[in-house]
Amino acid sequence: MNPSKPILSFWFEFSSTYSYLSAGRIRSVCEREGIEFEWKPFLLGPIFKEQGMSDSPFNLFPTKGRYMWKDMERKTKKYGLPFRKPDIFPRNGLKAARITTAFLDQPWIEEFILEIYKLEFSQNVDISDKIALSNLLNSLGQNAEEILLLSESAENKELLRKNTEEASILGIFGAPSFIVNRELFWGDDRLEDAIEFLKRT
Amino acid sequence: MNPSKPILSFWFEFSSTYSYLSAGRIRSVCEREGIEFEWKPFLLGPIFKEQGMSDSPFNLFPTKGRYMWKDMERKTKKYGLPFRKPDIFPRNGLKAARITTAFLDQPWIEEFILEIYKLEFSQNVDISDKIALSNLLNSLGQNAEEILLLSESAENKELLRKNTEEASILGIFGAPSFIVNRELFWGDDRLEDAIEFLKRT
Repeated sequence: MNPSKPILSFWFEFSSTYSYLSAGRIRSVCEREGIEFEWKPFLLGPIFKEQGMSDSPFNLFPTKGRYMWKDMERKTKKYGLPFRKPDIFPRNGLKAARITTAFLDQPWIEEFILEIYKLEFSQNVDISDKIALSNLLNSLGQNAEEILLLSESAENKELLRKNTEEASILGIFGAPSFIVNRELFWGDDRLEDAIEFLKRT
Repeated sequence: MNPSKPILSFWFEFSSTYSYLSAGRIRSVCEREGIEFEWKPFLLGPIFKEQGMSDSPFNLFPTKGRYMWKDMERKTKKYGLPFRKPDIFPRNGLKAARITTAFLDQPWIEEFILEIYKLEFSQNVDISDKIALSNLLNSLGQNAEEILLLSESAENKELLRKNTEEASILGIFGAPSFIVNRELFWGDDRLEDAIEFLKRT
């Protein structure tokens, strides 16, 4: 990655439905547009707490929540992503976020991220379940036990906390969010605007 | 309007920033796409109250609010609409909504709607002010006094209340919203999806 070339930072949270939409299309969109992007895992929980919310806004505001599931059905269909409304929402994405944080430079991590989202939002799998995570990691040819252990190190936990702090400082209040040159774009539907902004600056 | 031909219903509220974006572009977008639409004024206040909110979410969640103003700056620029952040938000759009409800079939009403939004979001005008409303109506060649009087009739007030009730029944929780064949699309960024849906059905 050329540090002098501006890139798009994709801030995502595993429990977030709309992050799934962006995760599922960001690689192809960015390649088509000829721009670079980076995955930035963070946690929405502390960000929501800062705003006085103890749960997902889609649970706190059920009418909005009902709409969101309908919208997800339509959007996943449009983007060609598998979808099934999970029985429980939100799922706890902490372990998956820690794994992603610890192994962000690994060639298998992007597939890991996408598979986690698919397990969660098309196969009703509890993504905080160690067996589900191990199965996935093993299927990617990785040593699940070692990865889970390393991802729970104090150093790595702190790294994810720092990411979340950085998100808050950047003004991020939801996911997905895109940052280009410190400029914030929120929501899957702003990905194209963020790319346009990056190309102009 | 051909009643057998499906049309797009554009549910808007004068106090809503993102409704301004849609109001400012819906005519040209729908004409380009060859579809018909109707203006549906309603009130967000009762809809927010149903969700337990006593103010705009952009005031209740200030980080989100700060982002919204930045986003409005970018989007109005993109759409070629004048914009200046008003000193007070939200403004009270009740009187303007009543006028729109009472005179929805008048040829001047679309210009009235657009001018109200421009006064509010580019000229910092209090759109609940009777003098501002009168000046606008007079500038459109209308009898302001008569219009204001008629718009405050019990019958017309009831009509707007009914609109808002209908919005709630349709699952509307924010503005702008688009309804096509009872299917809800929320947000200016879903206008294209709503049109696509209308064309398919």
